Amino acid sequence: MSRRPRVAFQGEAGAFSQEAVHNLFGDAAAVIPCQRFVEVFAALTSKAADAAVVPIENTLHGSVHENYDHLLDYDVRITGETNVRIVHNLIAIPGVRFRQIRRVFSHPVALNQCLDFFAAHPQLETVPFYDTAGSVKMIQEQKLTDAAAVASSIAASIYGARILRRSIEDDRRNFTRFFLLRRASERRAALSKARSWKTSIVFTTRNTPGALFRGISAFALRDLNLTKIESRPLRGKPWEYRFYVDVMGREDDPAVKNALNHLRELADFLRVLGSYPSSA
Amino acid sequence: MSRRPRVAFQGEAGAFSQEAVHNLFGDAAAVIPCQRFVEVFAALTSKAADAAVVPIENTLHGSVHENYDHLLDYDVRITGETNVRIVHNLIAIPGVRFRQIRRVFSHPVALNQCLDFFAAHPQLETVPFYDTAGSVKMIQEQKLTDAAAVASSIAASIYGARILRRSIEDDRRNFTRFFLLRRASERRAALSKARSWKTSIVFTTRNTPGALFRGISAFALRDLNLTKIESRPLRGKPWEYRFYVDVMGREDDPAVKNALNHLRELADFLRVLGSYPSSA
Repeated sequence: MSRRPRVAFQGEAGAFSQEAVHNLFGDAAAVIPCQRFVEVFAALTSKAADAAVVPIENTLHGSVHENYDHLLDYDVRITGETNVRIVHNLIAIPGVRFRQIRRVFSHPVALNQCLDFFAAHPQLETVPFYDTAGSVKMIQEQKLTDAAAVASSIAASIYGARILRRSIEDDRRNFTRFFLLRRASERRAALSKARSWKTSIVFTTRNTPGALFRGISAFALRDLNLTKIESRPLRGKPWEYRFYVDVMGREDDPAVKNALNHLRELADFLRVLGSYPSSA
Repeated sequence: MSRRPRVAFQGEAGAFSQEAVHNLFGDAAAVIPCQRFVEVFAALTSKAADAAVVPIENTLHGSVHENYDHLLDYDVRITGETNVRIVHNLIAIPGVRFRQIRRVFSHPVALNQCLDFFAAHPQLETVPFYDTAGSVKMIQEQKLTDAAAVASSIAASIYGARILRRSIEDDRRNFTRFFLLRRASERRAALSKARSWKTSIVFTTRNTPGALFRGISAFALRDLNLTKIESRPLRGKPWEYRFYVDVMGREDDPAVKNALNHLRELADFLRVLGSYPSSA
């Protein structure tokens, strides 16, 4: 019998990253919550974890550049992706009713994404806390009967709490995309079952206009679809940029392979971060 | 005598946005702190404010897509930009010494960017608070002598507090880029003193690969430098993307004008968000 995969993520147990882990592994994973992103990558490369799940972009807040940096600094590969809708729920301990609630704990970013709900319920005082899932853990440990927390439904279920109001966030178009990572050394034959694949790359060019144009011609000339392109200035190097590109197809598809070889001629630096089944 | 410009921004007085206001206006501005970004845009278009300053991207956290959305929804123009390095300081009320500090209040995102400092000073308990600048205001109002706050230097000066430790953040490459906004109706003749200009545009194409390639050819064929390109998928419209592009030059420069006309032929939608002196 194979043991359960150990999967590292950033945040407390019940964080939205754990919803991403659940999407990717079902109930099979043993989770390893870490305080910092860098610890998630270190857990994977040191073999304390078998896999890692990290957020890479959010529809309201953009790309998590920090994790793009770690993807270059650690010897890991992207082997999957998943999207999680950020749904905030009002959560209390069992037996507590909505009319008893006076204080609501959560991470300020989460509280700030539920302003309409709190405007409609002025009797609720919001109280900032470290973490969305951590606030559920705290109200459960302290058995608070006048308090609630704002967190994911998975946090309610982990800490044995109850959802009093579902989906209290202002904006329902709040999605986070997560990457599933494995150690680069453990490159396994890609499963061929997936119908559509994506390949994520990072490349660097000097002096953008012509260079970027020629760079993406490598894909356009081969009718390859890009699903993401993003420039990021390199600090202290004016006019040098790093580009993040996602292209539809597998790294070993002939067209993708040729496009990457073409791009290697033009770019100062190119790294394939991984090929993985598209979640879309 | 002309009255002081009223400038709206999101956050408490002393927030990092106010450092951006200071970069752009010196001491001339009367600031209007707002709770939400949408209120900043509304303050400008309703003429409660003469100008607005909003963050648009951060070197660690990426683009603030929410503000790009508001730029399309409100009748405003970008008329300037500035970059602020996010420097976190340990701040206490006058007379309090470092060795007296036991608790440190701030926004969890700020506390989380100073983990090395707190690891080196385990006697300090971190306490989450709504806002960086608001935590300085609170320790000053409550005259706390065992507590400090983590915030900008401008917050220390506004609330009459003292900086005990400067620049305690883990990563010095944490910069936020801000846009200065004016009402679109008050389009004034652009000052010609600035040596280098930028123009920010948003455009939409269907079916990326060829379309994006042809789109940016409008700039490449005219030797125009792009300083930013970013794709953003349109929710519910697979394969449709919105692109954010910054190009060096003024909207009324002949080459930029021709490039924009060329791009209009190819794009489903194109909006010029503004031309402004480059901060670089």
